[in-house]
Amino acid sequence: MKEFMKAALDEAYKGIDNGDGGPFGAVIVRDGIIVGRGHNCVLSGKNPVLHGEIMAITDACRKLGTHLLDDCEIYTTAEPCPMCMGAILWAGIKAVYYGCNTKDTESIGFRDEVFYKMLNSENMGITYSEYDREECLKLFRDYSGRADKQLY
Amino acid sequence: MKEFMKAALDEAYKGIDNGDGGPFGAVIVRDGIIVGRGHNCVLSGKNPVLHGEIMAITDACRKLGTHLLDDCEIYTTAEPCPMCMGAILWAGIKAVYYGCNTKDTESIGFRDEVFYKMLNSENMGITYSEYDREECLKLFRDYSGRADKQLY
Repeated sequence: MKEFMKAALDEAYKGIDNGDGGPFGAVIVRDGIIVGRGHNCVLSGKNPVLHGEIMAITDACRKLGTHLLDDCEIYTTAEPCPMCMGAILWAGIKAVYYGCNTKDTESIGFRDEVFYKMLNSENMGITYSEYDREECLKLFRDYSGRADKQLY
Repeated sequence: MKEFMKAALDEAYKGIDNGDGGPFGAVIVRDGIIVGRGHNCVLSGKNPVLHGEIMAITDACRKLGTHLLDDCEIYTTAEPCPMCMGAILWAGIKAVYYGCNTKDTESIGFRDEVFYKMLNSENMGITYSEYDREECLKLFRDYSGRADKQLY
């Protein structure tokens, strides 16, 4: 739904405004309600693991008190990297809706090529769909124009 | 080096003795010194992200005060899943030494098949090598025999 990607975008903007990391946000949704939110905190958290999807999953698990999110969906402003895709699969999340795709992410300078060479997204057995790309591309363009951008 | 895999195994045993999660431990090494340690805490931490490699990377980043571990190696008791492999690549870690391989992990019941279908480890551009498998297989056998085992 449009409102969920909007919430993911709000997270991403919060992150780049804080200087937390790259332009990436995500939310976890269960039964039409947002149960987890997160944005990239690689720079502020000094930890390469802290991508938006990982932060959102961690937030949802904390709130729900479980390591299993198998009744949940994730909305994320960009196609998950293999680290995040792995986390999504381990969490048991059943559907992924992403805004920008991997080519879009590469196009603003992120070194995703090595990652997507190692990823084959055809056989994951879950819903995996582009969604609301135009709004998310606007986020990428905004970030690309910033003098303080860093590619994490 | 033998002592590093031994330290990873010690972490794994600590984890299964605590009931933290599956039989997986890892250490991060820089200039011959262990700078990060971790074991699977998916169950105790109620978070599917908390694999041994992620915990070790997080520990090393905290100790070194950086999100970049590009002068580090990782020793892990089992071949990293794509989530952990993604984290290793984002951290910039230059060499991976793993004990048990993915077939070994599947053989004790972990659902790694879906993961390794999505992973192509041939093009990652870093050292990626099996190491001290026999000692790590002993860990797997020990875990497999436990009544309280859970596959996370």
